[in-house]
Amino acid sequence: MDIPLFMRTLGRQAREASRVLASASTEAKNRALVATAEEIRRQRDALVAANAKDLALARQAGLEPAMLDRLTLNEKGVETMATGLEQVASLPDPVGEMTEVRRRPSGIQVGKMRVPIGVVGIIYEARPNVTADAAALCLKSGNAAILRGGSEAIESNRAIAACIQAGLADAGLPATAAQIVGITDRAAVGALITMPEFVDVIVPRGGKGLIARISSEARVPVIKHLDGNCHIYIDDEADPLKIVPIVENAKTQRYGTCNTVETLIVARNAAAAALPKIAAMLSAKGVEMRCCETSLALLRQASIPGAKLVAAREEDWGEEYLAPIIAVRIVDGLDEAIAHINAYSSGHTEAIITENYTRAMRFLREVDSSSVMVNASTRFADGFEYGLGAEIGISTDKFHARGPVGLEGLTSQKWIVFGNGEIRR
Amino acid sequence: MDIPLFMRTLGRQAREASRVLASASTEAKNRALVATAEEIRRQRDALVAANAKDLALARQAGLEPAMLDRLTLNEKGVETMATGLEQVASLPDPVGEMTEVRRRPSGIQVGKMRVPIGVVGIIYEARPNVTADAAALCLKSGNAAILRGGSEAIESNRAIAACIQAGLADAGLPATAAQIVGITDRAAVGALITMPEFVDVIVPRGGKGLIARISSEARVPVIKHLDGNCHIYIDDEADPLKIVPIVENAKTQRYGTCNTVETLIVARNAAAAALPKIAAMLSAKGVEMRCCETSLALLRQASIPGAKLVAAREEDWGEEYLAPIIAVRIVDGLDEAIAHINAYSSGHTEAIITENYTRAMRFLREVDSSSVMVNASTRFADGFEYGLGAEIGISTDKFHARGPVGLEGLTSQKWIVFGNGEIRR
Repeated sequence: MDIPLFMRTLGRQAREASRVLASASTEAKNRALVATAEEIRRQRDALVAANAKDLALARQAGLEPAMLDRLTLNEKGVETMATGLEQVASLPDPVGEMTEVRRRPSGIQVGKMRVPIGVVGIIYEARPNVTADAAALCLKSGNAAILRGGSEAIESNRAIAACIQAGLADAGLPATAAQIVGITDRAAVGALITMPEFVDVIVPRGGKGLIARISSEARVPVIKHLDGNCHIYIDDEADPLKIVPIVENAKTQRYGTCNTVETLIVARNAAAAALPKIAAMLSAKGVEMRCCETSLALLRQASIPGAKLVAAREEDWGEEYLAPIIAVRIVDGLDEAIAHINAYSSGHTEAIITENYTRAMRFLREVDSSSVMVNASTRFADGFEYGLGAEIGISTDKFHARGPVGLEGLTSQKWIVFGNGEIRR
Repeated sequence: MDIPLFMRTLGRQAREASRVLASASTEAKNRALVATAEEIRRQRDALVAANAKDLALARQAGLEPAMLDRLTLNEKGVETMATGLEQVASLPDPVGEMTEVRRRPSGIQVGKMRVPIGVVGIIYEARPNVTADAAALCLKSGNAAILRGGSEAIESNRAIAACIQAGLADAGLPATAAQIVGITDRAAVGALITMPEFVDVIVPRGGKGLIARISSEARVPVIKHLDGNCHIYIDDEADPLKIVPIVENAKTQRYGTCNTVETLIVARNAAAAALPKIAAMLSAKGVEMRCCETSLALLRQASIPGAKLVAAREEDWGEEYLAPIIAVRIVDGLDEAIAHINAYSSGHTEAIITENYTRAMRFLREVDSSSVMVNASTRFADGFEYGLGAEIGISTDKFHARGPVGLEGLTSQKWIVFGNGEIRR
């Protein structure tokens, strides 16, 4: 099989479909989403059966339990997919929105109109629900989608794609508006990310290795984050009542998410009062603390029962543990905290706990990350929590979308001019 | 000389300076701009003398008159540079602006804050004034700049850079905030566009060849347009009084600009009345018309004195003439006009002339270009005309900035969260 040719055909079809989608009515797009949800519910048993085939092969191949868990699509998962599609249908349509229209001295009125980007390539791993979620966001934002899921989920993805096709047909939209890459060959990914004439942006979702490889090889923009090495800085004017709850939530609510805090930075004058309380909470939850010299001495002296204290090495400041481990560093104050964060952070999410207005505003301004927070848990860095309604990914880049990316991040803006016969002088 | 090492040093210095600039006060940035303007006026004779050296060498090397013209910096040009700097100082500072702050059900307030991109690399050709203009826009938007002008303008650029250095020193800002690449070796450009760790975006300004080469080799985002193949569509409900003035302005005000119209598309029912009048105006100005079969027959029959009529070839639809030439095509109506534009346009600027509301709105929505206009000359596609105050370039891409790019296009937005101890449920 000629894979580059196959992918170029998919790309050409997507490009053609994208022109239809760009001017599709909100009504048609919503109808396709709702009809897909209905079809998914109707096909519930078939979807679970297709998934069972994937799971059987995956077990044979000896996939890890965590991977099997992500691959599993049960009845509840089917319902969640259907509900997700309906939620995207209920979101406002970003396409065609006109903003910032202003009259200029020449007489023309100049503004902006929101438009789709065109064709979005989604590359993901085991989770089959991404097929429905990503297709829905692309469709609502007027983009054609090319979906390349993991080979281990191919039967599930094909079954979900059939439901999407039914939904598109119901709304009179082209079947090529959302295409899955039906072949499992890895070369398909290589082709997908190197055809700027057909694909405008790539959204990779999966492990760091996958994303790094795609970013370095892509010839089109990539919306991505590699790491979530998030920080909380506890200022010496922090409200003592806010410290432990925020750290507990940010570290222990879920260990494996990208907005989980990985390093705690503590102002020298706050350490003696705050650190033992934090350590007691973390120890009770079995979280290991990798401490700088000063914090290690302080916590050893506090002799907290069951505390797992380890001396931090330089590598710890750059690590995303995704595990019950946290790095701890004592600094002189805000300047040193900001310098540490800007040096070691992956640019995902950082928070300060303080009651000091000027330090809060300086932290917001000077910390160079996609989300910067005052007195809140880093766990809030999320499209739903931010009110985007849905999220296709989180970007730690500065170009185009940054932070949680929803429908708006899948669009661009063009300039529009309303004239009345004006000419330039 | 180890050019990659030299460029990496420049890059590292720019990255360090960008951290200082990101939190520099508006006052300091404006002071640097105004002090640079003052120094430029003070050094007027030295600047003109430095430019004379460049011009002498360029004449020896046999540069074309157009190139010599672009290279020339006379007393008036010096004053224009100084005024430009003062204008940028008078623009609002985009950095730190907080927008769209909304309270979420969780209690947190989520919004956006505008931040600099970081380090901007500018690559340009003969015009020495770009050194001052681009440095000013980068500085005001809180970005460090690395400026790589043409080797033919090296003496002029060095002299201008010295003025910028004086301005930065006056404001207490780092000298490395705006660095010119002092070496003329071409390998310097290759290095500049392939160090994503130090340079965040490249803005090439110059000929199509330069821009195409940079785009294909860059490892960082590029803000660019290659072509300005702009269209005007004359609908059959166009106001007859608006047609000739708009076409005249869009084609003949300046032939060599990227927002000059290159193809005229005329609705079949409008052609008989409109085309002879347009042809008379264009003929009087010596503009050659490359016509489709139908329009050629129509205009030959009209026998307009002095009309230069040529049969259009397929290549004409994709051409940016930058000359007194215009392509002409008759179509059945709006659908065909939009299809022609989306097939051949370079995505720069297109205009419709019509009194029909629905067609005007469809044209705005469906034409996939960075500027789309109703009843106005394409010549308005310009940062100053749009009210951006200044322009670093025009982008025909959809990712990040699109159309004329001013201060805002040199910035990004991060998410900010104002909490009061909230944790995620």
